[in-house]
Amino acid sequence: MKEIVDLNCDMGEGFGQWTLGEAPDEAIMALISSANIAAGFHAGDPNSMDRVVRLAQTYGVGLGAHPGYNDLQGFGRRYIKTNSDELVNDIIYQVGAIREFGRRYGISLQHVKPHGALYMEAAVNEELSEKIVDALGKTCGTAIIFCMGVSKTYEVAKRLGHPVAREFYADRDYDNSGSIVFARRVSRPKPDEIAAKCVRACKEGVVKTVDGEDIPIEFESICFHSDTPGALDIGKAIRAGLTEAGITIAPAANVLGL
Amino acid sequence: MKEIVDLNCDMGEGFGQWTLGEAPDEAIMALISSANIAAGFHAGDPNSMDRVVRLAQTYGVGLGAHPGYNDLQGFGRRYIKTNSDELVNDIIYQVGAIREFGRRYGISLQHVKPHGALYMEAAVNEELSEKIVDALGKTCGTAIIFCMGVSKTYEVAKRLGHPVAREFYADRDYDNSGSIVFARRVSRPKPDEIAAKCVRACKEGVVKTVDGEDIPIEFESICFHSDTPGALDIGKAIRAGLTEAGITIAPAANVLGL
Amino acid sequence: MKEIVDLNCDMGEGFGQWTLGEAPDEAIMALISSANIAAGFHAGDPNSMDRVVRLAQTYGVGLGAHPGYNDLQGFGRRYIKTNSDELVNDIIYQVGAIREFGRRYGISLQHVKPHGALYMEAAVNEELSEKIVDALGKTCGTAIIFCMGVSKTYEVAKRLGHPVAREFYADRDYDNSGSIVFARRVSRPKPDEIAAKCVRACKEGVVKTVDGEDIPIEFESICFHSDTPGALDIGKAIRAGLTEAGITIAPAANVLGL
Amino acid sequence: MKEIVDLNCDMGEGFGQWTLGEAPDEAIMALISSANIAAGFHAGDPNSMDRVVRLAQTYGVGLGAHPGYNDLQGFGRRYIKTNSDELVNDIIYQVGAIREFGRRYGISLQHVKPHGALYMEAAVNEELSEKIVDALGKTCGTAIIFCMGVSKTYEVAKRLGHPVAREFYADRDYDNSGSIVFARRVSRPKPDEIAAKCVRACKEGVVKTVDGEDIPIEFESICFHSDTPGALDIGKAIRAGLTEAGITIAPAANVLGL
Repeated sequence: MKEIVDLNCDMGEGFGQWTLGEAPDEAIMALISSANIAAGFHAGDPNSMDRVVRLAQTYGVGLGAHPGYNDLQGFGRRYIKTNSDELVNDIIYQVGAIREFGRRYGISLQHVKPHGALYMEAAVNEELSEKIVDALGKTCGTAIIFCMGVSKTYEVAKRLGHPVAREFYADRDYDNSGSIVFARRVSRPKPDEIAAKCVRACKEGVVKTVDGEDIPIEFESICFHSDTPGALDIGKAIRAGLTEAGITIAPAANVLGL
Repeated sequence: MKEIVDLNCDMGEGFGQWTLGEAPDEAIMALISSANIAAGFHAGDPNSMDRVVRLAQTYGVGLGAHPGYNDLQGFGRRYIKTNSDELVNDIIYQVGAIREFGRRYGISLQHVKPHGALYMEAAVNEELSEKIVDALGKTCGTAIIFCMGVSKTYEVAKRLGHPVAREFYADRDYDNSGSIVFARRVSRPKPDEIAAKCVRACKEGVVKTVDGEDIPIEFESICFHSDTPGALDIGKAIRAGLTEAGITIAPAANVLGL
Repeated sequence: MKEIVDLNCDMGEGFGQWTLGEAPDEAIMALISSANIAAGFHAGDPNSMDRVVRLAQTYGVGLGAHPGYNDLQGFGRRYIKTNSDELVNDIIYQVGAIREFGRRYGISLQHVKPHGALYMEAAVNEELSEKIVDALGKTCGTAIIFCMGVSKTYEVAKRLGHPVAREFYADRDYDNSGSIVFARRVSRPKPDEIAAKCVRACKEGVVKTVDGEDIPIEFESICFHSDTPGALDIGKAIRAGLTEAGITIAPAANVLGL
Repeated sequence: MKEIVDLNCDMGEGFGQWTLGEAPDEAIMALISSANIAAGFHAGDPNSMDRVVRLAQTYGVGLGAHPGYNDLQGFGRRYIKTNSDELVNDIIYQVGAIREFGRRYGISLQHVKPHGALYMEAAVNEELSEKIVDALGKTCGTAIIFCMGVSKTYEVAKRLGHPVAREFYADRDYDNSGSIVFARRVSRPKPDEIAAKCVRACKEGVVKTVDGEDIPIEFESICFHSDTPGALDIGKAIRAGLTEAGITIAPAANVLGL
């Protein structure tokens, strides 16, 4: 039974004139405790970053960098085959950009969460996870890495002693291995079902998989996506459900006691 | 008569498979005291940034961010009409990226120098210069702004008390106003003539303009460009000329006594 | 009193995961007679182009290329200072891409309309207009150029004998010179007022300017923008208004009798 | 024993200010009979395309589009995982752009050759090859597809009756399966060894693999790369070797008798 959990969401996923998701950034920001902010490679531009980082400061939300593959057209949801060193350089670049906007508004970087296909790649690629953790150790040793509980990223961060938070995916399906089923596009889920799934995961530590089985799930942060259809209602439902169940929502750094 | 001067050069101006300039980065880095490193908008990618920042650390060269217009095709040498807030966001983004690589190698940001058309725009745009200085004041108050002596950027930095270094352009022509004549492409100059021009500027504080007149010139840093044809010979000639004239070459922070 | 007029709209202005405008492309396509399709530089990607060109074929809408400045972040609404030859190359590139999708679906290119700031630049830049007309003369001599009646583009096309259609801007304001007032973002106008403005322009040949004066206006095509808030209702109102007034809506090629 | 063969080379692989390869485009163009011209996704911009297409016209070289993955940083040599429909749209887009420049200079498209990782992907991906051939069949049915003899692309083109030319790679190594060994970067080979390898392949129909075995090889076109170190000398050596051996060099369309 969990007493405290982080609630994170991807933010600032527009680009130039374009926006993503139906809800205004401000409305989502008021619901969450950690924000993963797009940093220009799969989404986000300096203007959106400036705006969203300021919102994070206003709402006391944990500041997170959300680095992705350099693929605006594919929204970072297409795997690009390259070596780990190049990907780590991409991550450092994007993390640095987000931190600088944080500095502008007097907030420091709380966490780093790779985006989309890069997140999924790191989850299964031990070398990449090691190089990410090593690089972050040098540049921002206190920044929490967000990842799946069932992932090389988690194993590596634990082994190397880097702060890490495991995520529970409110709006994604799980398979029996405990991994989420990756999707480039997602259909509209029911907010109350998602909220119930989250509360159950917090209270009982289990989630039902796409095969109908209950599997154990451990996590410090719940994630939902601002581009999932109905994101605002989903966020509200999760927050209401957790609150009603007596579970405190707080930034990952607080959950981890950092 | 100057006893100490900085020698700066634009570095890391390739992209992906492409390089710019004939000389290897390492050869140039061995000659200079401050490096302006391209940050991805007009040139440079995370891999080149990682490599060049590491070289700056190796050679004890002052680390500088070289933010430009977001225009890879135009190499940041095409003016883009937009508001100052957008441009400042672009600068913060690029500065943050460079700083992060610096952090990886344990060196801090010494300076920020806008690139190409953005540099020229800031020189004449007081509002833009004010917003740049204001933003840098919040994010990296000790980072020296590089600019022309005859520029709004210099006036504003002085007025607001932000550290600033004026540049002398070794491989560009001056007009009678004391501004350089901006060019998208440059022909091959003679290294010894450039060196003599630099030494004279240091010793006598004057430079001959395109109209044949001598005008007074004040500066703390000499700039040459790694993509000017013959850059390596130019850099060697300047270094030899200055050394022979008893002028010490040192990073801008040292020259300014910071 | 006009008996026939073209109704054109910018289409396919999303990118990757992002869309622009509230209305589905298909709903807009059913209302118009000419489509200006974004070609990847300011908006649009090969997937959107493929989809929208096929819709143009389905609805019998005149196929138009909508080339813009190479500036995804600025949506082609930021002026980039460069020479006319570069801009003409950009246009040829984008026109070729659109034509190729047309070829895939068996429809040929009806028109070319520069987008945003490039359209406004061509309107006042005689050299650029001449080079555009010259290039299109070589590559697609039958493709109609869309432009403002008060523009260098119109003068040049007329002088050089290239097919040309003047536009009436339903959702933009006019100044007393007969030029539209360029805007990066537009507020939500009233559909019935826009429809009335169009009908009056067709019947009386006049439009009221921002200064409250009536000025004469000549045109062969009416334009509204799919990203103007309420675009679908605007399109429906214009179509209804014109139809009620006995004015036929047909592709520009038909209006010009080509 | 071959009496006639095509000699093709990738051309226009710079971007903006950057160039690739040591040799001027014009010097290479004078040696070859078919040019594969980069179309903006992995390299090339509208200015380089305009310039290189005009050179192809000047030298009577067969005009080819060289579409690649949308990855400027990776030079199209990084595999991007996506569906075949998206890739075919990317190809149509790039082919259309090249054709339009051809139209400007009065030359029509001779061939299409996917670039780098996309070429290698098509070689093993039957669905992708089918969709490429199907799309080209609709848009430019006479354009020859360039591919390896051992590839799905060749099988599919043959089966569907689309004109196809098999390539012999002068400056790449072969494995025993008859496939080339793909490389992101290549070291400097010896021109006379390459020329001898080409002449032998033409005369005897065999090539030695990386395992030291001779395997049979069939082809209508010989390819070398303008970014291989020493490309100009390689091209000259191949041309001299073939000429001396009495083998005519001619565009692929002539070789195929189209």
